[in-house]
Amino acid sequence: MPSLTAYKNELDYSYAPGIFPSMECLTYRPEKTRRLLIHSSAAGRDGTDRLCALAEKHGIRVEEADRALARISGKENCYAAAVFSKFEDRPDPEKPHIVLHNPGDSGNIGTILRTALGLGIEDIALIRPCADLFDPKTVRASMGSLFRLRVKVYDRFEEYREAYPERALYPFMLDASVPLQEVVRTKPPLWTLIFGNEGRGLPAEFAAYGQAVRIESNDKVDSLNLAIAAGIGIYQFTIHNS
Amino acid sequence: MPSLTAYKNELDYSYAPGIFPSMECLTYRPEKTRRLLIHSSAAGRDGTDRLCALAEKHGIRVEEADRALARISGKENCYAAAVFSKFEDRPDPEKPHIVLHNPGDSGNIGTILRTALGLGIEDIALIRPCADLFDPKTVRASMGSLFRLRVKVYDRFEEYREAYPERALYPFMLDASVPLQEVVRTKPPLWTLIFGNEGRGLPAEFAAYGQAVRIESNDKVDSLNLAIAAGIGIYQFTIHNS
Repeated sequence: MPSLTAYKNELDYSYAPGIFPSMECLTYRPEKTRRLLIHSSAAGRDGTDRLCALAEKHGIRVEEADRALARISGKENCYAAAVFSKFEDRPDPEKPHIVLHNPGDSGNIGTILRTALGLGIEDIALIRPCADLFDPKTVRASMGSLFRLRVKVYDRFEEYREAYPERALYPFMLDASVPLQEVVRTKPPLWTLIFGNEGRGLPAEFAAYGQAVRIESNDKVDSLNLAIAAGIGIYQFTIHNS
Repeated sequence: MPSLTAYKNELDYSYAPGIFPSMECLTYRPEKTRRLLIHSSAAGRDGTDRLCALAEKHGIRVEEADRALARISGKENCYAAAVFSKFEDRPDPEKPHIVLHNPGDSGNIGTILRTALGLGIEDIALIRPCADLFDPKTVRASMGSLFRLRVKVYDRFEEYREAYPERALYPFMLDASVPLQEVVRTKPPLWTLIFGNEGRGLPAEFAAYGQAVRIESNDKVDSLNLAIAAGIGIYQFTIHNS
């Protein structure tokens, strides 16, 4: 493996910066983990010891790499990073899904992955163009949730629809007439929540793809933040599942 | 007024970077607005024209200030910024409140302000130590909601409690035994939701201050992101108010 450069989209590998995200990578994707980088000042710390033990168990090489860590994370105090091969999983057709259409911010994607996993939704689709799922910023914002989820990136929404034809689709749109509280009362077990871009929302034609949903916010703000809207939507749909 | 420096906590003024946040500043806090800075390349744009008209109406000076805008926003393409005097309002004792205890991230504070306003909660308290309410990053993340809210920063939580003794307090805690869905069914009209620091949550003694609440997430994530947890909590409490 060549020497480690700052992350670029074209690479077939990426980095999970931080002790917790690295632990998630080694725990849930050991077969994808290429190396574990450790900062010299972190040797012997509790979290680092557990990371190294896990790497050893899976035969993953551990390296002290202070400069590479600073380059990768853009910070001086990044103590560990797992280097992993990019991967893809098909969302489970028998489970609820989240679709993010053209999300532009890697922090938002990561936060939504973390929220989804925490609320029990493990199957996610992203529709291009979108921010890079494997950007270390996404991985960090997800706190490593990425490694426990089934996520696939599609070129077009139609591809997703054709792959999963038998589902109730719920596009979240600012101008939808039916409020979230009403929609969740009648939802079937197999659903997909669809959230649009931070600035533009979803294209108007999405209203015809399923039951458009409006979160009951007032007009004192332009819209809710994307990750917040997704958090509220996912919580409502999952709490009514149980 | 001296020449404009990059923002520092000690200053008695701050900046609302961006056209939309500046518009909120001029609309809701004209008496606090000292100047309006405009980028030379933005003259004649639709949003800029409306901003300048509003400034003129209120007798606020408008300046072309390309270099100051780059310095303030840290970006090349910031087209406008309002310069405003810091302010403080007492939360309304007759309204529901949000308390953020030791929030460490200005982006989180701004996002929570925006969410609160959009869901109809306009009275907020912050407890020190906390990230700077008036940091331009907070103002930007709030999309200018800050100017429509009553926000006060307290040195200690006890000061807030003494100022508002007659309220039902709901500290959000990971180890609380009562889930959010159950709590919202029995809440009184006058409530305060309390959210802790991003990393540490709330100190254990907060459980004794009111009815501790747990959001029904699983243990696959450490916790939900602070702004997401606040978004879910505020949505639930406000939707059950209506």
